[in-house]
Parts: sequence; structure tokens; C-alpha cells
Amino acid sequence: MKVKAQAVSARNASRFLSALSTDKKNSALKAIRDALMARSDEIVRANEMDLQIAEETNLAAPLKKRLSFPFSKIEDVCKGIDSLISLDDPVGKTLSATELDKNLELFKVSCPIGVIGVIFESRPDALVQISTLCLKSGNAVLLKGGSEAENTNTILAEIIADVSSRAGIPDGWIQLLHTREDVGQMLSMDEYIDLIIPRGSNEFVKYIMNNTAIPVMGHADGICHAYVHEAADIDMAASLVTDSKTQYVAVCNAVETLLVDAACADKALPVIAASLTQRGVEIRGCERTRRIIDCKEAREEDWATEYLDYIISVKVVDGIEQAIEHINTYGSGHTDLIITSDKKAAALFMSLVDSADVFWNCSTRFADGYRYGLGAEVGISTNKIHARGPVGLEGLVIYKYMLMGNGQVVADYVEGRAEFTHKKLAKDFPLSN
Amino acid sequence: MKVKAQAVSARNASRFLSALSTDKKNSALKAIRDALMARSDEIVRANEMDLQIAEETNLAAPLKKRLSFPFSKIEDVCKGIDSLISLDDPVGKTLSATELDKNLELFKVSCPIGVIGVIFESRPDALVQISTLCLKSGNAVLLKGGSEAENTNTILAEIIADVSSRAGIPDGWIQLLHTREDVGQMLSMDEYIDLIIPRGSNEFVKYIMNNTAIPVMGHADGICHAYVHEAADIDMAASLVTDSKTQYVAVCNAVETLLVDAACADKALPVIAASLTQRGVEIRGCERTRRIIDCKEAREEDWATEYLDYIISVKVVDGIEQAIEHINTYGSGHTDLIITSDKKAAALFMSLVDSADVFWNCSTRFADGYRYGLGAEVGISTNKIHARGPVGLEGLVIYKYMLMGNGQVVADYVEGRAEFTHKKLAKDFPLSN
Repeated sequence: MKVKAQAVSARNASRFLSALSTDKKNSALKAIRDALMARSDEIVRANEMDLQIAEETNLAAPLKKRLSFPFSKIEDVCKGIDSLISLDDPVGKTLSATELDKNLELFKVSCPIGVIGVIFESRPDALVQISTLCLKSGNAVLLKGGSEAENTNTILAEIIADVSSRAGIPDGWIQLLHTREDVGQMLSMDEYIDLIIPRGSNEFVKYIMNNTAIPVMGHADGICHAYVHEAADIDMAASLVTDSKTQYVAVCNAVETLLVDAACADKALPVIAASLTQRGVEIRGCERTRRIIDCKEAREEDWATEYLDYIISVKVVDGIEQAIEHINTYGSGHTDLIITSDKKAAALFMSLVDSADVFWNCSTRFADGYRYGLGAEVGISTNKIHARGPVGLEGLVIYKYMLMGNGQVVADYVEGRAEFTHKKLAKDFPLSN
Repeated sequence: MKVKAQAVSARNASRFLSALSTDKKNSALKAIRDALMARSDEIVRANEMDLQIAEETNLAAPLKKRLSFPFSKIEDVCKGIDSLISLDDPVGKTLSATELDKNLELFKVSCPIGVIGVIFESRPDALVQISTLCLKSGNAVLLKGGSEAENTNTILAEIIADVSSRAGIPDGWIQLLHTREDVGQMLSMDEYIDLIIPRGSNEFVKYIMNNTAIPVMGHADGICHAYVHEAADIDMAASLVTDSKTQYVAVCNAVETLLVDAACADKALPVIAASLTQRGVEIRGCERTRRIIDCKEAREEDWATEYLDYIISVKVVDGIEQAIEHINTYGSGHTDLIITSDKKAAALFMSLVDSADVFWNCSTRFADGYRYGLGAEVGISTNKIHARGPVGLEGLVIYKYMLMGNGQVVADYVEGRAEFTHKKLAKDFPLSN
């Protein structure tokens, strides 16, 4: 019942969040940033408690690293809030305006989605980033972070709720959930929650997707490909594949499968393999690959595996169509790259590969909200509706149709006494609240 | 297994539909229109078989009327195809362009969703409208119409598949399903289908929403409100409420509940009630309403009922906030109207009512894709993500991010050897396939 009360409270707050002015939201964001800096000692102390527990429970080293939230990271998230303040308000934008008839004008205007539930990993900075993105876009938010970060998340959520309330943001817009049972309850609250954004492991995201009637935005797998076309610069290919695979292996936009065109495989594979091997990458090749370089054998399941590790599967393909077909069959619609100097090949690849991000001659690791210039991101989506790829502020809004008339009735148009003009108008919705 | 084969075939076609030129799609639409006219005798004959069966099985009169597809209606859908041809191609639009760094340019470009499953009512014109909207937006489509229209739908789908194939559209893009079991199977094919659009009764749409992992776009209820503000012109109010209620009672954008401000109820209610009663509308009022006019009693469940009939529930409210709260509590987020001469009240109402369509001084019956100038519509959505309100071509596309570089790696940006510029560019994606 507690989660229901939280969801209702968020829903009630969201009714008024949608009407907040940009100034009020930005003032609240400034107040949050100032409070996080002013109370950084408390935050660091709470984080040290979490780190202490992590130590005692032998939390894995990479998780401990993500959990750590020292003053330097608080400074980083505060810089993030500054850049969020400088971004345009995504709410209240007139997306189109149409005259239906004289004095009957239709406006399509962006507005917040409403209430968003976000489940995220152990990094406490995620809590600040997600909640401030939601505030700027006028959404209420239910947050569930990693349980390892419970003390840090609690103080962060308290500070944000407290300060934003004093800055005139409706109480209840930010709600922290605490347990797995809370998440289970949240998934059943389709009456109050409009969108769930799960971040985390493959299995976890799939579980969420299969256990709620609420729309889910996110990605399960990140099986990304690099395809070395026959017209590729081989040194560039080696550099891009190596960066895409090894710059950070544990992330969704790292390359998992390398496709090499048969027309250049003899030349390209040894160079690329040498570069990968030097960075400690294990290569699993198809039969044709193994005729050219010495490596382990790739099995059918390798084409569908997200290693998130220093492992790459390699396949020799006969031409660009086969590469595209492999990607559309085994890929997860996340990020896929072609390396070529042939513009037509690049155009074909970018047109036919059905992924959120399709790249030409640059690392797959660029698929990221910050690198795209979106400000922060709430996550990366491989959905085919609403928002795709890195999702920033624009993915957190929808629109309303506003129609203003002076007494028009439909009977007049149906019975021929009036006619629609359907003229595009170059103006913004004129009413402000 | 048959439905799976159809879904796979649609998926395969969709890979190539996304890359079709506007000219090719428009030529195919012209060919479809010409073929529907040329083969109108066959279509009318098939429809007469359906009408004959409807006669024998005592189909209700309104359903028979919808099922009827004489030459005049074939002409109407052909006019609809003409106007669809004249609309902009929603695919391939550059939505934003950003320089991430010199020679590293990011484009957000619209593209088809992929494969769409549509379940629609007995009107055969719906099959033509939906399939041509999907073709223009580059989507493959699985269609299931009303079983009463089986013969008509079969010949229509055959003509469209045949003609579009000869016009160079990939085979398999249009698939007709035939039974309820087919629909059940379709709902489980989240691997091949990207979006389900169910049209039909309340219970049916809710059933679909609760029985598939595929995103669903549509509306279950259409509980629309008209609120007569204290500053309303009472004659306008009577006219708008009457049109919104009675112009066509069996549709989702008809008004079901009238809210009248206590400040003008004594004057307004008798006038509005007289107008409604004259059109044969049964009034169910709250206690305060019944002190002013003679009518049946409204019970709690009336506020949550979509009558789709000559019945309206009426409630006296104390001010605009109470009206907004009633609508956000009992409404279905479809279409809600304020009648007032007070601009500030209109602005407040339009800002705080959380519905797809919020209207000021005009009939709720305007909430319709054709009336909005969208061309036809695939349906009306009360979703909070992707598309809201009447959904035309723009609701059938999503976007891809296309990034073009010349060898950039992320390590350079992370390790400080390069910096992002993040400049907005005023140009379109330069590669065409």
C-alpha cells in the first residue's frame, strides 16, 4: 500500500508540474545544485556508510567503484545540473499550428508525459541526473536505485525533495522506492504511472518488459556490430574496431561482432586482429576467419551473445547485403557501424540497418546522450516507438492538441454549411497559464 | 504457424519498404486507386455477399450500414488515397542535425516503425485507409477486419497486394488475418511486430492491452467532458453541448458528462437541458442539478460510464479547479471542452486537463484525423507516449540517429585529446539511397 500512496502522490504532483514556468523549474534546479554542494559532507558520509557495508559484504570491485560518490563526483553532477539549466525547456513548444477554419485554430503543443518510474543501477549520480531531467521536463518520478547505494540515495532524494519543495515545486514529485517488492508493486500501478525506464542487466530489463502493462522504454541487449566494407581504410578499421570493442567493454554500445567483407578479409583481418589482440581481446572466428587468422571458433550462439567483455566474434561475409542481413537478424537494434570510403555503400547500410544508431566511420562508443549533446540521458532505447537511441529531455515529453474556436459545431461541416480550410499557421499557441 | 509465416514475410518486406522513394510509394498508391476503381464491380459483388450473410444472420442494422460498401464509398476511399498522395512523405525527414566535432556530424532522421498489426471494425473502407497510410509511411501491416466483412476485405487486400507488387513494393508488406485465433497468435509475435493498433469496443481494446508484450496504441474509453464555466455564453454552451453529445452518439469523441459551474447553473442548465431534450437525450443529474431541472438521478458509476448513446450525465461543480479535478479523475484522457469567454480560465483548463485533446469553445466532435487535416487517421490514441489524439502519418514513424565521421574514436575525447563542439547544424542528412 505504501507504494500506491507514493504513486498517487506523484500523480497528484504531476498535474501541476506540467504547468510550471521554465523560470520556476530552473530556479529549483539551481537550488538543488547549491544544496548538493552545501551538504556535500553529509552526502559523502552517507556514501561512506554504503562503501563500508560494501566492504563487509565483499561487493565486487567494479560495483564498488560505481557506488563511490566522493566530492569530485558531486561536483560533476552539479556541473551536469548547470548544463541542464542551460538547455531549452522541452515543455510548451508548439509543434504545429493549423487553421481548421476561420477562428478555429489547432495547436499541437509539447507537454510532460506525467509519472515515470525509473529503476537504475548502483551509481548514485544516476539518481541526481534522472530526477533533474524529470524535473526540467515536468515529470514526477518514482526512483529505485541499487540497494548497495541505499544510504546515499536516501540523503540525495531527501535533499532534492526538500529544496525543490521550498522552490515551489509541488510536493511528492520525487519518490524513492526501497525494496524489490516496491518495484513489483510499481509495475502493477498502470493507473498512476505512464512509463517505466529500467536500466540494468539484460535479464532484468526483459523481466520488467514481460511483467507490466505500463509502457517500458529501454534496451535489453546491446549486440552492436562493426562491418568492414571492401572499400574500407584498413588502418581506420583497426582503430575503430579496437575503440568500439575496448574503450569500455562493459557497456551496451561496445561492439560484440565484427563482420569483414570477403573482398578485403585477407588484408584486413590480420591487421585488425593484431590491434585487438594487443588490447587483450579474445577472438572467436567463423570458419573463413580461421583460414586467415589463428583464433578460437565461433559457434552459432556467439552471433547472439553480448559479451560485455574482452571477447569479439568475427564473421567473413559476402558483400554488404549479407552484412546487413546478419545485423538485422542477430543484432539488437542498438548501434551498428560501417567502415568504408564508399559513400553509396554507407548510404545503403545506414538506410537498411534497422537500428537506433547507424554509424559511418566512427566508433560505436559515441552512441551516448552526453556525446550526442543531449545533456544527460535517462537511458538508451531500442524501442521502435516514442524514443530511440540515447534519450534525453525530448524523450520525456509528449504533446496535447489544443483547439480554440468561437462556437463551431461539427454538424455545420458534415451538413455542408461550413468547410475546412486546413491552412498551416506560422504561430505559437497563444495562451500561457 | 500460418500467422508466423505472415509476420515473417511482413518483417522481411519492411526492411526494404523503409528505403523506398516517395515517388515509388506515390506511384503505387495511384495504381491502387486506379485498380479499386477499375475493379469496383468485383468489390461491390463481394460486399453484396457479405451483406447477404449479414441479412441471413440478422446482423444489427447499424453494423449492416457500416458494412455496406457501394460504389459511392469506393469513390470516397479513392478520394482519400488522392489526398494521401498529396501529403508530405513522413519518412526521411531530418529532425535535427548536430556537429559533435569537425567532420563528425549527427543526424536524427525519421523512418518507418516497421511492422504494424491493426485490428479494426466492420467498415471495409478502414482496410483501404489503414493499408495506404502504412504504405505511405513505409510500414508493413497485418490487418484483421470484422468477420462480417470477410469477402469484401479479402478482395480489397488481394487487389492492393497485387497492384502494389507490380508497382515495385516488396511482396508481403500487406497481410490479411482471418480469425480470432489469428489475432491471438499475432499478439505473441513481439519478435516480428512492432506496434498493435486495436480499434473497437472498450473491452476488446483492454483485452488486447493486457495480452501482449507488443506496444499497443489506441484508446479504450472515450469519456469526454464539456465544462460550462461561469463566464460562458449560454446559447453557445447549449449549441456546443448538443453537437458534442448528439451529432453522432456512437463515437469516442462524443461528450458523456456535462459539468456546469454553480455560478451559472441556474441560468445555464434549463437552456442546455431544453436543447438536449429536444434531441431526445436522457439527462442523469447530480443532486444539485436535480434541484434546477427535472431529470433522472446520476449515480457514482455514471461519472465513469461511456454511454455511446442518447444519455448524458450532468454535475454541478464549484469552480474550475473542481471541474478539472473531476475530469482528471473520471475522464479517459481523450477530449475535453471548456466553454467560456474568459481567456485566463481557458488557459488554465487547457494547461491542467491531462487529455489528448483540450478544446475551448468548439465541439468535441472535431477530435478526428480528417478534421485536424492529418489526412486519414489510423486511430485515436490516449497513450501518454509516442502519439496522442488522432494519429495520422506522423504517428507511424520513428527516427534513427545517423552519425558520419572520418575515423574518430571515443578514447580521444575521454582522454582529453579532442573536445566536442555540439553545434546545431542547419542542414539535412546528405546521403540518399
